[in-house]
Amino acid sequence: MMDPTDDRIAHGGALSEAVARHGGSASEWLDLSTGISPFSLPLPELSADCWRRLPEQAEVLRVCELAKRHYGGSVVPVAVPGTQAAIQLLPWLAPSADMAAIVSPTYGEYELSYRRVGKTVKHIETLEAADSTLASTVVLANPNNPDGRETMRDDIFGFARAHRHRLVIVDEAFADLRQDLSMVGAAGTEPNLVVMRSFGKFFGLAGLRLGFVFAEPRLAGILSQRIGPRAVSGPALAIAAHAFSRIDLIGELRGRIDKANTMTRSALSRAGVRIVGEAPLFFYCDVGDGAAVRDAMASRQVLVRAFDHSPSRIRIGLVPDELSAVRLRETLRFAGARVS
Amino acid sequence: MMDPTDDRIAHGGALSEAVARHGGSASEWLDLSTGISPFSLPLPELSADCWRRLPEQAEVLRVCELAKRHYGGSVVPVAVPGTQAAIQLLPWLAPSADMAAIVSPTYGEYELSYRRVGKTVKHIETLEAADSTLASTVVLANPNNPDGRETMRDDIFGFARAHRHRLVIVDEAFADLRQDLSMVGAAGTEPNLVVMRSFGKFFGLAGLRLGFVFAEPRLAGILSQRIGPRAVSGPALAIAAHAFSRIDLIGELRGRIDKANTMTRSALSRAGVRIVGEAPLFFYCDVGDGAAVRDAMASRQVLVRAFDHSPSRIRIGLVPDELSAVRLRETLRFAGARVS
Repeated sequence: MMDPTDDRIAHGGALSEAVARHGGSASEWLDLSTGISPFSLPLPELSADCWRRLPEQAEVLRVCELAKRHYGGSVVPVAVPGTQAAIQLLPWLAPSADMAAIVSPTYGEYELSYRRVGKTVKHIETLEAADSTLASTVVLANPNNPDGRETMRDDIFGFARAHRHRLVIVDEAFADLRQDLSMVGAAGTEPNLVVMRSFGKFFGLAGLRLGFVFAEPRLAGILSQRIGPRAVSGPALAIAAHAFSRIDLIGELRGRIDKANTMTRSALSRAGVRIVGEAPLFFYCDVGDGAAVRDAMASRQVLVRAFDHSPSRIRIGLVPDELSAVRLRETLRFAGARVS
Repeated sequence: MMDPTDDRIAHGGALSEAVARHGGSASEWLDLSTGISPFSLPLPELSADCWRRLPEQAEVLRVCELAKRHYGGSVVPVAVPGTQAAIQLLPWLAPSADMAAIVSPTYGEYELSYRRVGKTVKHIETLEAADSTLASTVVLANPNNPDGRETMRDDIFGFARAHRHRLVIVDEAFADLRQDLSMVGAAGTEPNLVVMRSFGKFFGLAGLRLGFVFAEPRLAGILSQRIGPRAVSGPALAIAAHAFSRIDLIGELRGRIDKANTMTRSALSRAGVRIVGEAPLFFYCDVGDGAAVRDAMASRQVLVRAFDHSPSRIRIGLVPDELSAVRLRETLRFAGARVS
């Protein structure tokens, strides 16, 4: 049994810790440490019932049907209280397997989930490299977090079809604006392909805890059983039903994210920061000493994320507006001067 | 592996199914099929951040500290997205054990959770009866659902102390108004005692999905690991922090529940229905043919819960007001006449 105190890995969004360490009040900070959209979907009026009543199976099914349409699925997905909840359960999709290969570096929770139940984890650089391992499960984030690396659809298709004996799990938490990369439509028809989607990142509602997993019925059944009934909250179901029905609002969010992406890129470029990877909701930058730059920026109440696995890099989320773009640019210049 | 389609058990609150079968619109129904309070805590203003941001560990810890005080714990509990999420994980608290004994009849999900992972389940009538089994885990709901049966604190203490090699799991989902029965204060100090509390039932906010588990650090650590980070939604944390700080509102909810309990009892008595068990939030009644009475009541858009394990019984939740009390009384009379 692992020591529970070891079972924590660093994540973005740890604003309270940053405030405790560097001062200021939370509202004074510019938190760019996550890949969550800075623009939240305007919330619909929520009925008293969605708070008071237990979510019903019929409601869950209705939202899952809408998610199928929204994400372009071939099968009705399983709703989970955040993709993280599904990640916790990945080992049960192939319970007799001993080893998982993870395309790395990537989000640390995949590895933790397999190690927690005593499985071996093999870090690989590309999907194809799984070929030379004994891993019966391969995990890929696409686009990858934090480096934005993309794996082409044809490559995933090819791999999944050539390796029917391996489970291929694709986390598309950051694929909302890269539908060209998405394997959602193939999940379920390719029997060994499982695709996860996150609701909160694109819709700017990460506090809701909602995600969807697309898989063939047997695998979907295992997940449903393990997650248990009424796993997703009533407000999350109501808000998702609203979100998936409002193409106008989705289009507006896309437009705002596009603009914010351009503003952020321009701030990085003007600060002379080298972008080495990106996804629509974040940039991955080489700054020489990531931890030092992060700390220098934090001294000015701007929070970004550094990485133990890639010490020269930081990840920077999107600024919400021009004022924040200027602040990001100036803070990066200040940090660059201080660190060099 | 179980067939996933077998993995569903009947629950209260299935209003959509009832509407589909018996007609009417959802708002015309009086749903008394659950033990959720009909009175919801008035919601506080929710910040945009609680929806947008990922819940932070510091916030979770703050709410858990408040939960410790509110429920009278000796240890800081683990927050879970609904007690159901904890029930799913009960087998991992004693992973090497083969058998669980469950004080029955009771909520069906305990048994399902153990059977799902291949454990044997033994139904026992009282806590003491676990003595004659090989079960290393004993599960008790107190007060019990659906029959309201109470197990005295001293008996649980005595059992837990005499059976240090057995894990004693007490689900206190319906103990909010029966603090005299609660073992929360002993959970964690008695190393083999685990106590679960539900937030949604007393506060009338079951859609939130929030519960707390009190246990000693090693067991709490297992649960935390299995649940994973950021399991509880931002709104649930914000609302719980508010709820636990407002003794005035808690007192008001208690008063309203007391009154509703009296009104409901009186309606049952005037309809000549025999109460055979009760908890503050529901009554358990002998009506001869539970399914027939449930169906007759449903034909008048009043929903109650019948039980396969106790075919003569129905469970009736609290009516919210006098008008509903009259409707319950008349519907019970109608059903009684039609069934007999």
